Amino acid sequence: MSTNTEQSAVTVLGLGPMGRSLAGAFLDAGMRTTVWNRTPGKDREPAARGAVSARSAEEAVSASGLIVVCVVNYDASDAILRREAVTAALKGRTVVNLTADTPERARDTSKWAAEHGIRYLDGAIMTPTTTIGTPAGVFLHSGPKDLYLEHRPVLEALGGTHTHLGEDIGRAAAYDIALLDIFWTAMAGYAHALAVARAEGISARELAPFAKGIGAILPPLFEETAEEMDQGTFSGEGNPLTSAVSSMAHIVHTSEAHGIDAGVMRAAEGQARRAIGRGHGADGFIRIAEFLGRR
Amino acid sequence: MSTNTEQSAVTVLGLGPMGRSLAGAFLDAGMRTTVWNRTPGKDREPAARGAVSARSAEEAVSASGLIVVCVVNYDASDAILRREAVTAALKGRTVVNLTADTPERARDTSKWAAEHGIRYLDGAIMTPTTTIGTPAGVFLHSGPKDLYLEHRPVLEALGGTHTHLGEDIGRAAAYDIALLDIFWTAMAGYAHALAVARAEGISARELAPFAKGIGAILPPLFEETAEEMDQGTFSGEGNPLTSAVSSMAHIVHTSEAHGIDAGVMRAAEGQARRAIGRGHGADGFIRIAEFLGRR
Repeated sequence: MSTNTEQSAVTVLGLGPMGRSLAGAFLDAGMRTTVWNRTPGKDREPAARGAVSARSAEEAVSASGLIVVCVVNYDASDAILRREAVTAALKGRTVVNLTADTPERARDTSKWAAEHGIRYLDGAIMTPTTTIGTPAGVFLHSGPKDLYLEHRPVLEALGGTHTHLGEDIGRAAAYDIALLDIFWTAMAGYAHALAVARAEGISARELAPFAKGIGAILPPLFEETAEEMDQGTFSGEGNPLTSAVSSMAHIVHTSEAHGIDAGVMRAAEGQARRAIGRGHGADGFIRIAEFLGRR
Repeated sequence: MSTNTEQSAVTVLGLGPMGRSLAGAFLDAGMRTTVWNRTPGKDREPAARGAVSARSAEEAVSASGLIVVCVVNYDASDAILRREAVTAALKGRTVVNLTADTPERARDTSKWAAEHGIRYLDGAIMTPTTTIGTPAGVFLHSGPKDLYLEHRPVLEALGGTHTHLGEDIGRAAAYDIALLDIFWTAMAGYAHALAVARAEGISARELAPFAKGIGAILPPLFEETAEEMDQGTFSGEGNPLTSAVSSMAHIVHTSEAHGIDAGVMRAAEGQARRAIGRGHGADGFIRIAEFLGRR
């Protein structure tokens, strides 16, 4: 294999739904794509689409200058990358780890990579598998800027928008954590609302058009209140924290009257009451963000 | 006052920010509007705009055929309406209670109204004070359909969209509770995400564009998963519950490593793990709605 081929070649480690989508996008872009998965059989689809199926992780790593990793978490990526033969094969190559985990795991992996002469970028994929290879994909990257710029042309074969968030290797994971925090909390709220609605004889389909209306007001509110957060001024005009906890108490009461677990809302109400207890009852809701940490 | 004038006149009880907006919209529509608030002084703005300021709740009630109530909760509306002189004055008139509270309080008030010859509709306002009198307002109503149709022309002076949800008087409050459940849970998630982001050195303004992206994917997801909820089939393809709890655990871990209260996410994670424990790990997230109630 010529150095030139090796430069433009890419290896995908991990062939779950997301890994297969990534490999598919690289193949669609006409790149020489080598794939490997810990449990066998997952390479069938990418192989049928033209991927080279490696017999081992070290063989997969040796085939390309850029190794994209996408597995369930960093325990899984460590189990693959930190085996002696694989670590040796990675020397001088670039790993882009798109596996989701915590910022501290990204920092720890970066340190390990530096100790073994492996060039390392961390990343996060913010959109579902179906967006890969389309303009809708959202990819976050962090780590050395020059290394990111070197590999950006290959990464852009995945479609969507790619943002380099900074040199701090943990930054992509930190954004990922914060954004998934919003996502999963909102989804927990929706699931709970559907349960309460059902107990009140309202079907999900009946509630959905109004739920979409609530969803639609969130993005502009996120933007407005972000300004407040950075400035430390939280306008409660028209909707103070005291009104919020009144609503929250109604939700908890109605939920529990139907025997429905209100643990999520109870915890949120407790956080809001903590901010009120500190004298911020007239402030806007986002003030609670300042009282979630240690005091 | 002629019966005709009385028919087209409206009284607003409660002059908090929302009550004042409602009175303002009635005045803008050229209606004879009488206002009253328990604590004095709040009538200054509507009076300056042409409202008749009543000296007592019973006087305010006697001025119109339609009485719109918007106070902090049903304890407050009971304290106004269930005084003997006011109850007597309400006889034969229609109360539209736009105060937010639980479905059971709406049902209880409806029963009290029937016992005293008062015609009663319950409602909920789903949008902020700034939307009142504009096309953006969202009003939900429940109770006798003919009574709603009779007063709809006056209510439509408030602008926005008005939906009659059914004869069950508690239905508007039930929708309100479910929709506020989504809203406040999502806002709690956002506040928490901002706290985690700050601890990771990410400003709210840096996070906001991506947070808006997350917010934008919620409405279509609410619609898709509503279908699943009603059908009882929860596709976890590409994003099973087991992946969700993995993300949730990362969020809890990162949050607590920074000393940030993760009670909301811990509660949500516990609910998701309960559904997994019942054998639904491969299902989509909304399956958890089926395991929030008593078993």
